[in-house]
Amino acid sequence: MSDIDVPESHPRYESLLTRHRIEEGVEKGITSRQGLIAQGRGEAFDYLLGERTTESADDAARAAAAHLLLAGHPVLSVNGNVAALCPGELVELAEVVDADLEVNLFNRTDERMRAIVEHLREHGAEDVKGLTADGRIPGIDHERAKVDADGIGSADVVLVPLEDGDRAEALGAMGKVELVVDLNPLSRSAQVATVPIVDNVIRAVPNVTRHARDLADASEEELRDVVEAFDADATLADAERAIRGGVDEEA
Amino acid sequence: MSDIDVPESHPRYESLLTRHRIEEGVEKGITSRQGLIAQGRGEAFDYLLGERTTESADDAARAAAAHLLLAGHPVLSVNGNVAALCPGELVELAEVVDADLEVNLFNRTDERMRAIVEHLREHGAEDVKGLTADGRIPGIDHERAKVDADGIGSADVVLVPLEDGDRAEALGAMGKVELVVDLNPLSRSAQVATVPIVDNVIRAVPNVTRHARDLADASEEELRDVVEAFDADATLADAERAIRGGVDEEA
Repeated sequence: MSDIDVPESHPRYESLLTRHRIEEGVEKGITSRQGLIAQGRGEAFDYLLGERTTESADDAARAAAAHLLLAGHPVLSVNGNVAALCPGELVELAEVVDADLEVNLFNRTDERMRAIVEHLREHGAEDVKGLTADGRIPGIDHERAKVDADGIGSADVVLVPLEDGDRAEALGAMGKVELVVDLNPLSRSAQVATVPIVDNVIRAVPNVTRHARDLADASEEELRDVVEAFDADATLADAERAIRGGVDEEA
Repeated sequence: MSDIDVPESHPRYESLLTRHRIEEGVEKGITSRQGLIAQGRGEAFDYLLGERTTESADDAARAAAAHLLLAGHPVLSVNGNVAALCPGELVELAEVVDADLEVNLFNRTDERMRAIVEHLREHGAEDVKGLTADGRIPGIDHERAKVDADGIGSADVVLVPLEDGDRAEALGAMGKVELVVDLNPLSRSAQVATVPIVDNVIRAVPNVTRHARDLADASEEELRDVVEAFDADATLADAERAIRGGVDEEA
């Protein structure tokens, strides 16, 4: 996070960084109109949340890290907003948990697919999946079902930050462990996730990486304990309470 | 509201209409990137509010109508999102309360100014102010201070839907009665308003018009009673409670 000329201690650092990255995303053809509106929705929820990672979101990030480390074939799904907001952070997480990166767009066009793959490569990604599109997610519209057969198609654990509700549901129905980042705890994506992380993706992705590094030497049994101790419903209820109730219920 | 091919009874009618109008706004060069993000923020607050006009927002709309009817020189300020979302509704309100329409942009460019003036004319506006820009709001940045001297510059009552906080504050400091439409009751614009209407602009503007028609034959004394009975702080507290607490506190 060093692409703007503002110290990290600046009170609006995260907000200025986000703004800068989204603008860059629009200029590069990565962020769509719908992506800008979605960004605004996220800003409002984050504002009500107090623009911080709650304790329960941190627990969810740790559970997500454990799932990624336990996975046989983990894939990080990347859409336009995620690519714009945290490209380097995603590449780093993929390295730490040995996951594939796959571009997976709700409004898929070849041009946007290529722009996003290129953007991830500029941020250090070597292999980026998504262009082959020889697999399908059952139960959703043809264009929106496209995935790589050797990517999301055969993944056992998928991190889908900012995913559309229909696709989140369809991925869950395929029996995959689904790790979702979404600032709206009432969204369908958050509701169907194995692990819903109710946090800003710009904070959540590096936080999952931090937990993955911390758990790197943990035994399989320890990782399973982290996974089993996690309660998705309690996390969602806590997030809703934080958003509805204001910022004074935890430090 | 008849520019989409969906019956008004459709459960997602308002949302589909909004989407359609925003898309059109982008195509016409009316809606900016920042406008799309702001639209998303509004959507999130509206979602938490239950996408309805609360009783206190309806009271605020009535107080706003009374202020407009009492005004010597009322002006409706129009920015890019407002122009895209409710152009015909604004023209109608201006007619009913005999107010000027003035285009007033945070990110002012000649091209956007002209596109918005043209869009309002297509929706029935005859005289649209804002292009002369021979007046200034004191205390804010030069470009953002521009208004018409015979428009907002000399208005006693201004309706500013979706206004930026700095400008809302500066307009208030000029002693104008400020009627604000904003879905975030904690925003500076809502906080400094004489009358904050915490509602979706697409519902609020026609609602102010409805109240203005209803109050058309009221005496000045009756209008003053409506104005004096209105409590901005109580309205904001009620709106925050509705957003924080969910949708079950009123019918």
